[in-house]
Amino acid sequence: MAHTIPTRLYAAEDAIPRFWYNLRADMTEKPDPILHPGTLRPASPEDLEGVFCKESVKQELDETTRLVEIPEGLRDFYRAYRPAPLIRAYFLEKALDTPAEIYYKHEGTNTSGSHKLNSAAAQAFYAKEEGLSGLTTETGAGQWGSALAMACAFFGLRLTVYMVKVSAAQKPYRKALMETYGAEVVPSPSDTTEAGKRILSQDPDTSGSLGCAISEAIEKAVRAEGCRYVLGSVLNHVLLHQSIIGQEVKAAFDHYGIRPDIIIGCAGGGSNLGGLIAPFMGERLRGVSKTRFIAVEPASCPSFTRGIYAYDFGDTARTTPLIKMYTLGSGFIPSPNHAGGLRYHGMNPTLSKLYRDGFLEARAETQTDVFDAAVRFAKIEGILPAPESSHAIKAAIDEALECKRTGEKKTILFGLTGTGYFDMTAYTAYNAGTMTDYIPTDEDLAKGFSSLPQTAR
Amino acid sequence: MAHTIPTRLYAAEDAIPRFWYNLRADMTEKPDPILHPGTLRPASPEDLEGVFCKESVKQELDETTRLVEIPEGLRDFYRAYRPAPLIRAYFLEKALDTPAEIYYKHEGTNTSGSHKLNSAAAQAFYAKEEGLSGLTTETGAGQWGSALAMACAFFGLRLTVYMVKVSAAQKPYRKALMETYGAEVVPSPSDTTEAGKRILSQDPDTSGSLGCAISEAIEKAVRAEGCRYVLGSVLNHVLLHQSIIGQEVKAAFDHYGIRPDIIIGCAGGGSNLGGLIAPFMGERLRGVSKTRFIAVEPASCPSFTRGIYAYDFGDTARTTPLIKMYTLGSGFIPSPNHAGGLRYHGMNPTLSKLYRDGFLEARAETQTDVFDAAVRFAKIEGILPAPESSHAIKAAIDEALECKRTGEKKTILFGLTGTGYFDMTAYTAYNAGTMTDYIPTDEDLAKGFSSLPQTAR
Repeated sequence: MAHTIPTRLYAAEDAIPRFWYNLRADMTEKPDPILHPGTLRPASPEDLEGVFCKESVKQELDETTRLVEIPEGLRDFYRAYRPAPLIRAYFLEKALDTPAEIYYKHEGTNTSGSHKLNSAAAQAFYAKEEGLSGLTTETGAGQWGSALAMACAFFGLRLTVYMVKVSAAQKPYRKALMETYGAEVVPSPSDTTEAGKRILSQDPDTSGSLGCAISEAIEKAVRAEGCRYVLGSVLNHVLLHQSIIGQEVKAAFDHYGIRPDIIIGCAGGGSNLGGLIAPFMGERLRGVSKTRFIAVEPASCPSFTRGIYAYDFGDTARTTPLIKMYTLGSGFIPSPNHAGGLRYHGMNPTLSKLYRDGFLEARAETQTDVFDAAVRFAKIEGILPAPESSHAIKAAIDEALECKRTGEKKTILFGLTGTGYFDMTAYTAYNAGTMTDYIPTDEDLAKGFSSLPQTAR
Repeated sequence: MAHTIPTRLYAAEDAIPRFWYNLRADMTEKPDPILHPGTLRPASPEDLEGVFCKESVKQELDETTRLVEIPEGLRDFYRAYRPAPLIRAYFLEKALDTPAEIYYKHEGTNTSGSHKLNSAAAQAFYAKEEGLSGLTTETGAGQWGSALAMACAFFGLRLTVYMVKVSAAQKPYRKALMETYGAEVVPSPSDTTEAGKRILSQDPDTSGSLGCAISEAIEKAVRAEGCRYVLGSVLNHVLLHQSIIGQEVKAAFDHYGIRPDIIIGCAGGGSNLGGLIAPFMGERLRGVSKTRFIAVEPASCPSFTRGIYAYDFGDTARTTPLIKMYTLGSGFIPSPNHAGGLRYHGMNPTLSKLYRDGFLEARAETQTDVFDAAVRFAKIEGILPAPESSHAIKAAIDEALECKRTGEKKTILFGLTGTGYFDMTAYTAYNAGTMTDYIPTDEDLAKGFSSLPQTAR
């Protein structure tokens, strides 16, 4: 028995998917195109290549290739930390006394602590291939910045990270981690860019937002030689890279003859959710499954459940192309008491379209409910989850308890996007009973909506 | 290809070893027995059962059973996070341009962040089986306390952790992690025990030591109903539990026909090193291999390389049985500038005997050299290692570079005991260039040696 161990001795075991899954190929109705903000016409590759890597642009605009080959050099990197564990939650099932079968894909075992590394590695790989010398990006809770710092160290690229100011203050260790990997970390808004200066002049005490940080990172990239901007969520090429999550699960499920009834993912910009569901949503769109898909977002930043489906900018300074998506307006800034990520004002356009067309459900959860679920899960399953991931845990527990009520033996899969190692400030507040909730009022939302571009409404 | 993924879908794959490996069964000359400190005669099971769980005592004193069965209920828990990845360091080999093959066993992917969970789970399992309601322990850097908090939450036991004061100050997030899992964390020395009060009265500004914290934890356990004390290193039953590390590696190596030439582990109390090498040292002792074994310890706490082989107490208050080991004296306290664990004054008695008899080599490394290796490794292999683990990395790199010099194609295995997620204060100091080294002078050591018991010298 002890001699048939499957290990990650990847020298002889090649378990890394060869293809990403491009969900859009299965959509009869495609997402609305990205628009050039000046002409309001669909953005051309040339429009985007000044900011992004060429291959990212190609992938962003490709709506027809279902299986996109993962380059061999990148698969080598993936082999160092993948496949991510897919775990049957026997302990949780027993504790909930549910007839449901619960599985989770645990993306938190790599050193960056989350699924973000999947796209960070891909984007750094392409940047190196294209002869670039450096990248810029933004980070909120720090998962994306950590992952990209790691990937850039590996592929030999310079990196500047604009980190949302409130996160930089809440998470000094995230900053230290990025710096250990050689990245320069700038709390945003900063006075190192025109966008940052403008935002600071309007609101010197702002806690920052992803939208601001994106503006700064883009400006920095466009002004530097051999440098491009990369984004860790929202865009379609990021979801494509993240589809390695779903591809691994699909292969394992097929191997064991498992058919998921419900797939649940937390949703900020949509990278994990889109990656997790990709091949399964493909089946649903092709009519060969009836799997339900549930996006879980924070009540403090509810783009799906309370946002508007409209063209909007990706950043606060309104420099990006226009994206048709569920959005709270690029001027929306979540309350500083919101811990963790999932604080972006918009949502990936493909997921937005799927939600609009009824293929995807969404719900919003408050922070304290989410941490209740997190701590419960931690004690039962032994993994301390990131606050982001815990949104999915909350919904998975709710669905499993619903199965208990109805007696249905459903198969539930959720994405455990990362660990909570760097979120101990939030856990400390939770343990001390000082964690608070924030649900924006309609007036709060109206303020965000007022930042939507008039031209594209 | 994507359809033959080996995952941790452990429902159908049973990859957890069935047996621990008791190295002492292969020793012709056994370690000297543990002595009762009053009578100076070998401790009986009854002497030890007032402090430790019955099964731990049985395992501690068993020198003849080579394969010890792992209880099925415990294997269930192990299935949630094991087998730990065994990784071929292709990237590191390439970066070093060495003909050596380098492997590492990565014990840092579980939520406690280190190998400590292997014994924490075992000891909590037995405590629950024996009808106990609570446990006490000490922790230094926090890995052991975190692991035990997690295990106690899972098995439903109360836990009090005495945490070395300097570590509690350096690592508030470790404390928060343990509290999230429901443990009570007391910085040590404290005024909650007589031992703590005595130590504080002698030195009110002491930064604490594992020896102090052990005294407090034992006192607390002995005074409480249904409570026992558990230790995360040093003792033989802990090494037995940790042999699951070596058992997994051995099975995987056998499967792929790999024979290690050199096995390297960091050494504090010896739990990881002893567990990693167990079945391989067994082969060496039985004369069927010539594998070299290297213990790497911090220059600031050099029990193997500069300690005395003598009977000594396990704790500062001199309440434990006497153990024959390499020791700096239970009064030795490492400098507060020492980051991370590996700060115990003594060394496991079995490893001490093996070192004495020439089966085990040892070397000491300074902190800054260790962090140099850590950051180098992080950038190349993508894993941010714990400072403890980085001692082994340093030695593995040195051995691989020696192979480059000689042209030998050796197979090197080292233990990556955990991640550095909770060591960012130390990494921040390293990044800022403010990290310092400490090598005790002979006078410093003499002070520690003066605390050795006269009776047993």
